[in-house]
Formats: sequence, structure tokens, C-alpha cells
Amino acid sequence: MGLFSKDIQTMDDLFVHTLRDIYYAENQIEKALPKMAKKAVDPALKAGFEKHLEETKGQITRLDEVFEGLGVKAKGVTCEAIDGIIKEAESIMHDVADKDVLDAAMIAAAQAVEHYEITRYGTLCTWADQLGHRDAAKLLRKTLAEEEATDEKLTMLAKSHVNDDAAAA
Amino acid sequence: MGLFSKDIQTMDDLFVHTLRDIYYAENQIEKALPKMAKKAVDPALKAGFEKHLEETKGQITRLDEVFEGLGVKAKGVTCEAIDGIIKEAESIMHDVADKDVLDAAMIAAAQAVEHYEITRYGTLCTWADQLGHRDAAKLLRKTLAEEEATDEKLTMLAKSHVNDDAAAA
Repeated sequence: MGLFSKDIQTMDDLFVHTLRDIYYAENQIEKALPKMAKKAVDPALKAGFEKHLEETKGQITRLDEVFEGLGVKAKGVTCEAIDGIIKEAESIMHDVADKDVLDAAMIAAAQAVEHYEITRYGTLCTWADQLGHRDAAKLLRKTLAEEEATDEKLTMLAKSHVNDDAAAA
Repeated sequence: MGLFSKDIQTMDDLFVHTLRDIYYAENQIEKALPKMAKKAVDPALKAGFEKHLEETKGQITRLDEVFEGLGVKAKGVTCEAIDGIIKEAESIMHDVADKDVLDAAMIAAAQAVEHYEITRYGTLCTWADQLGHRDAAKLLRKTLAEEEATDEKLTMLAKSHVNDDAAAA
């Protein structure tokens, strides 16, 4: 965006721009998750990635509803942050030899993705409240809660056994 | 890393790799913060960026201590995630015309940076515990607490007045 002009004039412009940023991000995450599920060794981690893929699809549908409610076109804008986070995840998946260490690395990568989503949805919820977009705020808050729960599950998985297996490898 | 071989064999390798990832990230953040402080309009936000710059310098020194304690060289590895997050922050800083809207956008960008750091330091603390690197765990936990406090302050700043100014713009 914005190579030749100042494209974002108002908070509503910024809100829509950030929705499009996370819309792009969710679509990239939808593409990345099946690869992560395929590589995961721990059955709970594999199931976690598969479950989050289904959740991600629902989150994209929810964003479609937000765009519709605002009367703006549902589309993405390139999000360099998620591109970098996913590129780093793919790179680490390539670099790790041991399967248990790979699971630990993938949990860390997935948590980086979750934290990106948590910060963006957190911001969007605050802005939706301030701009009086009540329906949007409700939908975005549902997704935020899902992302926080996923991050929490990944932390528990990391602390419980995946990393112990990896340290013993 | 790892274009031609599987470079990360053990959890210790993964731990050191991730330390180098965040070491690179902190150094990029140190370069980005003065630009954000310069652009910030709200005095509390400007002061916040300046304070976090000083904190970031301390966090880099702390990472030097962690590397020293482990007996490995303090160096960074390119972190595509932080490069993407900062590139996106710079792009949004370019695209936003109104100064109050710019402050809101910069808070969101800074929170994306903080969340990246929170996820990485959270992972590093868990791994340091599991690998028995007690001194490293203590140092990393101090930084994690600072990052969480900074994120919290940014949320309060966003909710208190910066965004209201922007919505009224």
C-alpha cells in the first residue's frame, strides 16, 4: 500500500486496513497449517494443528461477516509480518533433524503465529469498540478468545511432554 | 541457516539458534525505536518509545550475558519474522496521514513487536528450564517481564486517550 500517497486518512481507514492485513494473514496460516500437521510427530500436536486449521477456516468466515457488516469488500493486503513469521517457521522446519526437536521448534513457530494474531485481534477489538462497530467487536472478540486458547494449549503441550522428549533425544 | 544441511540436531542447538534469532531481533528493534519516538505525537507515547529503547539496550546486554554463560558466541541470525514486522510498521508509518491516527497505528505496530518478543522469550524460558540453564532462565525471565509490562502499558495508552483523539480526528 501507499507507495505514492498517504492512503490512510481516518481511524476507519486504519481499521479496514488492519482487517485486510489479518485477512491475508489468516489465509496464509490456512495454507501453512496442513504442512505443519503433516510434519508433527506427537499425536496431540498433530491433532492440535488439524483442529486449529478448522478454527482458522471459521475465523476467515467470521472476517467475511465483519467486512459485510461494514459494507466494505473482503480482501487481503500483503502482510509482511505474517510472511516473515511463516518463512521463519518453514526455515526452522527444514533445519531441524531430530523429530522430537522438530516438534518443539514447531510449537514455538506456531506460538509466534498465535501471538501475531492475538496482538492484531486485540488491537482490532479496541478500535471496533472506539469506532462503535459493535457487531464487528463481538465477532473479533470470539476469534481473539480462540487464539488465546490455542496459544495456551500450545504452552501446555510444550511444558508437558513434547520438550522433555526433545531434551532426552 | 541450513540451506544444504540439517543444522539443528539437539534442543541445545535449537535453544542457541533461537537466542541468536532474538539477538538479531533486539538489534533491529534498537534501530527502529528512535524513528518511532521521533514520529510519535502523543508525549506519553514518545516517552514510552524512548524508555523502551533504553530497556532494549539492557536486554541486548542481558543476552550477551546469556551467551557468555553458555560459552557460545554472541551473534545474531537473520530473523525474517522481525524483519517483516518492522517492515510493516515502517510501511504503515508511511501510509498514515493524520498524526493522531499515526499514533494509534504506531501503538499497534509496537504491540506486534512486543508480542513477537513475548512469544520468543516465553519459549526460551521454558527451554532454559528444561535444559537446566538456570542462570539463563533467570536473565530471560527478567526480559520477558519487561516485555509484558511494555505491552500492557501500550494497551493502556491505546485505551486511555490516543485512540479517542484519533477517532475524533
